[in-house]
Amino acid sequence: MQIIVKKFGGTSLADLSRVNRAVSYIKKSLALGNKVVVVVSAMGKETDRLLSLLDKLEEYRKSDDISSLLSSGEQVSSSFFSIILNRNNIKGKSFQGWQVPIYTNDSFINAMITDIEIKNILSSLKNNFVPVISGFQGINNDNRITTLGRGGSDTTAVAIAAKLKAKRCDIYTDVEGVYTADPRIVPNARKMHTINFEEMLELSSLGAKILHTRSVQLALQYDVKLQVLSSFTGKKGTMLVKDTKSLENQIIRGIAHSNNEALVTLVEVKNKPGISAVIFNALAAEDINVDMIVQSASPKDEKVTYGYTIEKSDAIKTKSLMLKIQKKLSFKEVIINKNICKVSVVGLGMKTNSGVANTLFSQLAKYNINVHVISTSEIKISILIDAKYKELAIRTLHDVFKLGKAKK
Amino acid sequence: MQIIVKKFGGTSLADLSRVNRAVSYIKKSLALGNKVVVVVSAMGKETDRLLSLLDKLEEYRKSDDISSLLSSGEQVSSSFFSIILNRNNIKGKSFQGWQVPIYTNDSFINAMITDIEIKNILSSLKNNFVPVISGFQGINNDNRITTLGRGGSDTTAVAIAAKLKAKRCDIYTDVEGVYTADPRIVPNARKMHTINFEEMLELSSLGAKILHTRSVQLALQYDVKLQVLSSFTGKKGTMLVKDTKSLENQIIRGIAHSNNEALVTLVEVKNKPGISAVIFNALAAEDINVDMIVQSASPKDEKVTYGYTIEKSDAIKTKSLMLKIQKKLSFKEVIINKNICKVSVVGLGMKTNSGVANTLFSQLAKYNINVHVISTSEIKISILIDAKYKELAIRTLHDVFKLGKAKK
Repeated sequence: MQIIVKKFGGTSLADLSRVNRAVSYIKKSLALGNKVVVVVSAMGKETDRLLSLLDKLEEYRKSDDISSLLSSGEQVSSSFFSIILNRNNIKGKSFQGWQVPIYTNDSFINAMITDIEIKNILSSLKNNFVPVISGFQGINNDNRITTLGRGGSDTTAVAIAAKLKAKRCDIYTDVEGVYTADPRIVPNARKMHTINFEEMLELSSLGAKILHTRSVQLALQYDVKLQVLSSFTGKKGTMLVKDTKSLENQIIRGIAHSNNEALVTLVEVKNKPGISAVIFNALAAEDINVDMIVQSASPKDEKVTYGYTIEKSDAIKTKSLMLKIQKKLSFKEVIINKNICKVSVVGLGMKTNSGVANTLFSQLAKYNINVHVISTSEIKISILIDAKYKELAIRTLHDVFKLGKAKK
Repeated sequence: MQIIVKKFGGTSLADLSRVNRAVSYIKKSLALGNKVVVVVSAMGKETDRLLSLLDKLEEYRKSDDISSLLSSGEQVSSSFFSIILNRNNIKGKSFQGWQVPIYTNDSFINAMITDIEIKNILSSLKNNFVPVISGFQGINNDNRITTLGRGGSDTTAVAIAAKLKAKRCDIYTDVEGVYTADPRIVPNARKMHTINFEEMLELSSLGAKILHTRSVQLALQYDVKLQVLSSFTGKKGTMLVKDTKSLENQIIRGIAHSNNEALVTLVEVKNKPGISAVIFNALAAEDINVDMIVQSASPKDEKVTYGYTIEKSDAIKTKSLMLKIQKKLSFKEVIINKNICKVSVVGLGMKTNSGVANTLFSQLAKYNINVHVISTSEIKISILIDAKYKELAIRTLHDVFKLGKAKK
């Protein structure tokens, strides 16, 4: 049985005509002799609508009722999609997380998949049904509904593809594939036909917003062939690959950016061992993720400035958490700056090329762009800059690393 | 453990302020030392919104995907209600049909409850949770989602009250209780403090729209104390009782009406045995319910006129079904009249009083109101009249049977 998993996101399902288009891709794939499994997100802006019912979400983050509420969006779209399949003479069958079942841990609104039972899906496929599975949701061991966090449907799709040993997992989205930079900012950005998993991981976690980061990790781990393509054109998109020897000549592959971060600065923290532990214990207890961290003083200084970035939506919560530990750490002030942007250059080739940082910082200096925080990995350099420089920084870096389409 | 089941309908949950009001009733009941179980319908017009996604519902009536789609509305409201309970420092816990579980037969969009497991509910109550159960939904033996038909949340509430041997089941709705007639039509209609189950059954199945008919049957069968009351005032409503000896002096108790019916007339049907069987087999195969039936000819006539009423929403489907059997029955024409109204007078006292029919038809004749179809039971007389006479008929019958408030 040659299985293809096809995942459709919210914009790909926003109205009946788009659902019909999605169904046409299923039809084509079935005609080629494939078995198809569909994974869907909530239609259009449904998740936002459901969230808007709650005026004070923060307090209830850990409640399974929130997961139950949010997961109804995917229930609507999987049921609806299956109905439209049947209308097109394709035998559809909707599956909610609990009907598969997809098991997760207890982290209700940011749950991790622990196991998927594929018996029901396989038997549906054998009876020539197209299973339509609600993404984003699962159940814990107590039969309570859990959700995988924003964008979690990608992860559902990849996990199911891995379990079914699918031939391929197609992620239909509102872009044509993975670009060297956001085409809305850089007009001559180029679509990549293939991209390495590690590069994609950096790009997606850095805000390329195309794939849920965990889905890429999962695809890498379980060797799932993953394709990102447009639900509007259905044209070949970008294929994620393990091996990109031929590409390694190109040092930098793409530039990502993110507007979702806020920089938290603790001013004049008393310098003693254990500062970080106090801060990150407080944040972890509330499930707040920290991205970049900077501590700007030598170990001998009496006072240090401590900075880190969080998601903008966690800003209020973070501020109150910091005020709670202010006495303990005896710092002077906490400042939260939301007016920043993170820009990252990514490429496997960086591993073996030392000139990248130099080129990058020289270019930024040339345009007087001040850098607040720097963080690096083997294959990326991320910088935090004032939001007003965002487009300028991305364009000038795209140029200097020669990422654009060849000029005709 | 003294348990009270409280059910809130869509209008009682239309926005946050109404949910807050509903929560205040829970709080009050808990303060009196009761254990409370909540059953909810979909919020506001959510079920209509979900139905509007489907432009051609008729074709898919029997699909479990439709049930899955519709049941998401109750999932939202039970989750939301539980979140608001928690916000008010009451421990809420939402339950979907499959989480209780509530088992039903396979009639997906009009399913009957076959069993309810109460273990999970009881253990929640023992741990001082207020279980908030999604009405209207259940699962069949294959773990597919089913729904109980429009208004089915009342039935969920009564079934749960029966299983839990609850002290009382309160149905909160948008009226103050059961009236002698629709107060919007008859200004001096009177709220009844008690009403007999049989009378309520006739009233609700005849379109009083206050309680799901099956819920009343169930309450009668399992001896559930059922109260209908307003979610806006929370004032004492109408209590359904088994024994109404003291009330039997009053011959007629109330007048119900329904605008939901259409009259189907088959003209010049060839008169031979088995006509009804052909017609009702065809309708039953598509789950179309027939209410009143009339055959207006003596058995010796060669041609007869055959009439019956259905729900308006089944009209198109019914027409096409009748055209399919036209040859077999060799009738001349099928006419569907949607411009009609059913009015019914109901009262236990009719059993022992023969003058009711006489009074009723004399009064209608006095106002020149023509009656198309008549149907009677031991405790009610229903008539089908042109829609334009609706208000006049109801008011004049309300008067003649002296149902109104005493004049001051």
